[in-house]
Amino acid sequence: MKDWTLRYEGFDPAQEGRREALCTLGNGYFATRGAAPEATADGLHYPGTYVAGCYNRLTTELAGRAVEHEDLVNLPNWLPLTFRTPGGDWLDLRSVEILSYVQELDLRQGVLSRTVRVKDREGRRTRIESRRLVHMRWPHLGALETTLIPESWEGPIELRAALDGRVTNRGVQRYRDLAHQHLVPVESGSVGPDTIALKMRTTRSEIGVAQAARTRVLLDGRLVSAARRVQAEPGYVAETFSAEVGPDRPLTVEKLFALYTSRDPAITECGLEARTAVARADDFEALRQSHAQAWARLWQRFDIEIEENDSADGDLPAALVLRLHAFHLLQTVSPHTIDLDVGVPARGLHGEAYRGHVFWDELFVFPFANFRMPEITRSLLRYRHRRLGEALAAARAAGYSGAMYPWQSGSNGRDETPVLFLNPRSGRWMPDHSQLQRHVGAAIAYNVWQYYQATADAEFLSAYGAEMVLEIARFWASLSTYNEDLGRYEILGVMGPDEYHDADPGSDRPGLRNNAYTNLMAAWVLWRAADMLQALPHDRQRELCATLGLTPEEISRWNEISRKLRLVFHGDDLLSQFEGYEQLEEFDWDSYRRRYGSLYRLDFILELEGKSPNRYKLSKQADVLMLFYLFSAEELGALFERLGYPFDPASIPRTIEYYLRRAARGSSLSRVTDAWVLARSDRRRSWHLFVEALRTDVADIQGGTTAEGIHLGAMAGTVDLVQRCYTGLELRGDVLWLNPRLPDDLRRLRLSVRYRGHSLELEVSHEALTVSAARCEMPVMKFGLRTEVHELTAGEVKVFPL
Amino acid sequence: MKDWTLRYEGFDPAQEGRREALCTLGNGYFATRGAAPEATADGLHYPGTYVAGCYNRLTTELAGRAVEHEDLVNLPNWLPLTFRTPGGDWLDLRSVEILSYVQELDLRQGVLSRTVRVKDREGRRTRIESRRLVHMRWPHLGALETTLIPESWEGPIELRAALDGRVTNRGVQRYRDLAHQHLVPVESGSVGPDTIALKMRTTRSEIGVAQAARTRVLLDGRLVSAARRVQAEPGYVAETFSAEVGPDRPLTVEKLFALYTSRDPAITECGLEARTAVARADDFEALRQSHAQAWARLWQRFDIEIEENDSADGDLPAALVLRLHAFHLLQTVSPHTIDLDVGVPARGLHGEAYRGHVFWDELFVFPFANFRMPEITRSLLRYRHRRLGEALAAARAAGYSGAMYPWQSGSNGRDETPVLFLNPRSGRWMPDHSQLQRHVGAAIAYNVWQYYQATADAEFLSAYGAEMVLEIARFWASLSTYNEDLGRYEILGVMGPDEYHDADPGSDRPGLRNNAYTNLMAAWVLWRAADMLQALPHDRQRELCATLGLTPEEISRWNEISRKLRLVFHGDDLLSQFEGYEQLEEFDWDSYRRRYGSLYRLDFILELEGKSPNRYKLSKQADVLMLFYLFSAEELGALFERLGYPFDPASIPRTIEYYLRRAARGSSLSRVTDAWVLARSDRRRSWHLFVEALRTDVADIQGGTTAEGIHLGAMAGTVDLVQRCYTGLELRGDVLWLNPRLPDDLRRLRLSVRYRGHSLELEVSHEALTVSAARCEMPVMKFGLRTEVHELTAGEVKVFPL
Repeated sequence: MKDWTLRYEGFDPAQEGRREALCTLGNGYFATRGAAPEATADGLHYPGTYVAGCYNRLTTELAGRAVEHEDLVNLPNWLPLTFRTPGGDWLDLRSVEILSYVQELDLRQGVLSRTVRVKDREGRRTRIESRRLVHMRWPHLGALETTLIPESWEGPIELRAALDGRVTNRGVQRYRDLAHQHLVPVESGSVGPDTIALKMRTTRSEIGVAQAARTRVLLDGRLVSAARRVQAEPGYVAETFSAEVGPDRPLTVEKLFALYTSRDPAITECGLEARTAVARADDFEALRQSHAQAWARLWQRFDIEIEENDSADGDLPAALVLRLHAFHLLQTVSPHTIDLDVGVPARGLHGEAYRGHVFWDELFVFPFANFRMPEITRSLLRYRHRRLGEALAAARAAGYSGAMYPWQSGSNGRDETPVLFLNPRSGRWMPDHSQLQRHVGAAIAYNVWQYYQATADAEFLSAYGAEMVLEIARFWASLSTYNEDLGRYEILGVMGPDEYHDADPGSDRPGLRNNAYTNLMAAWVLWRAADMLQALPHDRQRELCATLGLTPEEISRWNEISRKLRLVFHGDDLLSQFEGYEQLEEFDWDSYRRRYGSLYRLDFILELEGKSPNRYKLSKQADVLMLFYLFSAEELGALFERLGYPFDPASIPRTIEYYLRRAARGSSLSRVTDAWVLARSDRRRSWHLFVEALRTDVADIQGGTTAEGIHLGAMAGTVDLVQRCYTGLELRGDVLWLNPRLPDDLRRLRLSVRYRGHSLELEVSHEALTVSAARCEMPVMKFGLRTEVHELTAGEVKVFPL
Repeated sequence: MKDWTLRYEGFDPAQEGRREALCTLGNGYFATRGAAPEATADGLHYPGTYVAGCYNRLTTELAGRAVEHEDLVNLPNWLPLTFRTPGGDWLDLRSVEILSYVQELDLRQGVLSRTVRVKDREGRRTRIESRRLVHMRWPHLGALETTLIPESWEGPIELRAALDGRVTNRGVQRYRDLAHQHLVPVESGSVGPDTIALKMRTTRSEIGVAQAARTRVLLDGRLVSAARRVQAEPGYVAETFSAEVGPDRPLTVEKLFALYTSRDPAITECGLEARTAVARADDFEALRQSHAQAWARLWQRFDIEIEENDSADGDLPAALVLRLHAFHLLQTVSPHTIDLDVGVPARGLHGEAYRGHVFWDELFVFPFANFRMPEITRSLLRYRHRRLGEALAAARAAGYSGAMYPWQSGSNGRDETPVLFLNPRSGRWMPDHSQLQRHVGAAIAYNVWQYYQATADAEFLSAYGAEMVLEIARFWASLSTYNEDLGRYEILGVMGPDEYHDADPGSDRPGLRNNAYTNLMAAWVLWRAADMLQALPHDRQRELCATLGLTPEEISRWNEISRKLRLVFHGDDLLSQFEGYEQLEEFDWDSYRRRYGSLYRLDFILELEGKSPNRYKLSKQADVLMLFYLFSAEELGALFERLGYPFDPASIPRTIEYYLRRAARGSSLSRVTDAWVLARSDRRRSWHLFVEALRTDVADIQGGTTAEGIHLGAMAGTVDLVQRCYTGLELRGDVLWLNPRLPDDLRRLRLSVRYRGHSLELEVSHEALTVSAARCEMPVMKFGLRTEVHELTAGEVKVFPL
């Protein structure tokens, strides 16, 4: 089980936020949050849960500007459960001696267990064991089982179980000056002999959030009807039980819990649904079993198994961390989210950083879903389609046409990119121009195409996908300006994904000229948009063009721009990150490393010194390299050729090397792309970057950001690296191609891949590729290995020497 | 345009409710309701709109029983607009002389126009022209343009435009003693120089409903900034303008309107969205054009064109009424509802009868959607799937297994079938046992299969459809009891669709034995469920069986029951409606017809006389005949053979004749099924029944029920009759078969059909069938004509003599 269980020993309040984030349990619908340290000090008062997607206008003055936010709200806490001897203090881990503390997250079954042994002031030793789960088949249910075993004493005890709506959004230190009270009480009380209920409402978005909990008390495994007192106040309801316990009379509490919000489908009123659900629920053990079965079925589809060589680190094996990442992906997006109007927040539903805003992390998350359960991708792309109107309005307001998707998207899809951010090193507020990152729409178009390639889902393309891509293409065309002198189109005044560059050095006008990533993505979109239109049935083509007012002239203009967008080069054939990059100063990496150690937030360091990263050849993440992550050399070659620029595949390693040397890796995503682009050329270095990417959250390599929520894009990237990079998986010409090459440090790799209704099981070693066709939609399934196409029938297994 | 415009002349308050229902405008998302007569007497105070799906616990004492309902709520009225001369009365059509009144519903463009000429007490003549629409591309928007032309006077005038949330649910006379106040005020007021806003909340389901309206005033076509006074009070906001008008200075008011509820996707808070939408909206003329374009595109897919012979009724041509029915279907289910969690209420969203409950009308609605936009069917089947948990709980509570879908389904899917109904003839409350109609689940399973046949949508079947069908099969198995003496399974204690029989005569135990419709549908489900499971990929089969705990033994039990369910026959080979039917008394139809005229509610008549329909061989609708509607003779033959009963196709006409003679046709659906089953054997009579079915609502043949809401199932049935019955369209063995036979009264029929990604245009005359392939998914499209399979490539047109 070492590759399936994340285990921590010892209680360290300073580490609990990070651990809690790593051990969160949810199912994409509601997820337990990473606790703020002061909450975990309260021992068995487990932290709360989040509901995402309830953006609002709650205004707080921040540096003179009204900041509006209610995108991620800490849900009422369903986990409070504590004990005391009558008249004593309620158990608080800070005031007792902790004899031992073991916490285990069983990834296979989706159960979090803790065993704590404490000695109180009176010297009494008590063991407390607990297991909890958020149910993977019945997404409205959660369950907590806690057993208290007095090891050295006996006597009366009181236990208190509560639902607590007085929670606040205070999980991120630097947001604490912002409004953090997002819930107002609606009702609380007892709603039956064994059930309490709580209802809150979010302050501005007015989403109702209802909970009900059914509590049963067992002594030595036998159900007892313990006397119960209910205490209800606004936003809080607790029930207290009394019992006589002893070493032979351990006390077990089963707390079953249901959560509904007013935005759930198929409801009457959310409070009624929560009470009904908890009344109908099975007991803990039955729920645990059906939950484990649901996880087993999920793992059948989603597991990616790797075997490391013996030399591998035994403490946190890569196989375990990879599964932890898959587990977290399934906390955020799962079969349960298919039916919900939710996107992919940058930190999942695991922490408050970025307040639940949706960036472009789905670019990294979708490959995992596309090849396993593309219905998830489809649903998330529809989330974007539902916000097309907002993107159209944003473009119009900015003087452009088409759809301009924002860098940080709030719950209704509008731009929520902050305009200021705090430099904790200097205490100064710095202007944030990252809303000039216009490339999110290009990523959405790319995602539509990848989804379509993986599924051949013509219905989606016809009803939603093509419309989005066409409006995004329209935006790029309107953003492009023609430079008569050069005979080229240009895109000016934008930022690329590298956030350390937001202007030419010394300029007070934000925005760069001809960012290579942006221009190539725009060229790709303008090219592919016409293909996607062509892929539609003729009647739908006509209909869509009429609806969007799209003329042949406009499409031919796209064609022209896609052939004439400008790229800038320097050196012999190095693609410049943007126009003017060549003229920047080289940065003295060694000197800064000596002085500051980690250069993770080089922007803060430079601002402290009164300098700007804009002066230097450096990057937070090397955005040119993203292109090698998103496109194969063949695809890039075709793009360059179309644009009329020479393309020498031999320039790729030089370009990679050039930018890797100048990257600070301030983004958690950069290790994934860097490992990816090196995977074939420098396998040793690639593996090290991969291992470092795996450590992003388990080792909290950014020093504290894990407790603010896990880094979902980076987690997804590691999984995708194994899935696509090590197998050489690529979709080309209606064929799924493979070209496996394991890193030396891996012995074996096993995973399942769904492709256009087929289902393949792949096993890769250094010696052979084994392919079995678990499911074929058509009599024969085709796939490519290197340059040759092979056929498989359902149930067939073939082995190819490598 | 005579086949595209529904025109009424003359103002008759007694008729206005019916007309309003017929001329409602919506798009399935929000629909203008049929007005109660006292509302239309208020002239230009147009009636309100509904929001469905907000079930709640609102309790009202009715005959000693708490009736809970909030399934359909009359939305705040966005249409109030009225005029007066300063100091005079606001225009009220009851207190002026109406010189002329013309109302036209343009089905092609989706615009309702009215022109009223009035003479007031002072003898002044005024013409008022108005047009309104609920936007078919932007489903949150509506628009009203009203022009006032003083024909014989000039002078100052005041106009008032309002949003009125003080509406109640009083559209159905017999519900008026129930709670009818379902909205509470949240806020109202002016939110800008030309915009007012209103927000209400439903009382129990707590759904927020927000509206905003932007008003512009034009004099002789030129925008003027008329002085504006805003009057806001709880639940109501109005703005008043003053202007000088005259014969040469007509006054035009453009009122643009947005509606959002708290259940809409992609929103922040619904009030903010409504205000934003109205601020961004185009002006009336631009909205009217984009609306008309959206309708044009819809009609391209959905129009069914018939040409009658010259003998046809010129006033309300069948072609027009057929389009009206298609129009109403598109008001209730449309591309806009695909994304919403809504079902198919029996009266659409057009009236309050049945309070928005969902019965089985989708059985009639789906064929229209399946062959045009099956994504609509898919969405509506998912509505049922989301309520599977409720159906499982209902079965368990009643002591059965599997899923028991209710006869009347409330918004969260729970049983909302009333237990009493009022006989207005006797004034007595009669017990209503119709919750014993267990057959809704069988219809859902049938719908899943038909959808799958029409689309080959394996993903839907795998993710949702099969699970539902398997749980429904499980329910039928648990409802079946083995009769040792007969060696047969029986289903006891149920009601069939015919609601005039709810028990054996004289018995005080409700429920019938072995209702033929129920037993055959159950046998079909138990047979097909195993097929659907087999149709899934092997890995999904295993997964689903594990999730549902489905064993080979259980499936083989289904197989056995599906071969041994009991049917009862009488006469030579007449299928008995239920066991014991043969022993019932014949009913004296002539005598009752003489005494009562219409026998539409024979149950009321008999109860008045102290008798029960249970005594007689009669039916509200002949439910045995539903079997001939749902299955072809070949399919029925296969079912009978499997059950081990002899089946002589020659018995079909005898059976049809037998039950038609004993049918009161108290259900609006019965004319459709009766016309269907006679279509080949007695074409004259079938045509007359079809024409009568067309008249259901346009002539209000049930005497007043149209004003309570249109009869959506019957409307759908007429469209489907033309689509499938007259073309002989049938899906068999992965081929779409045609076998056209036009009624003598039709000259020609034209329609488009989508089938598994292909798109066919069909034209049928008495002489020939013309088929053109507008869209082919594969290089070749196959279809069958009578017994032969033909092939078409994209763009090809073939003519077949008939």
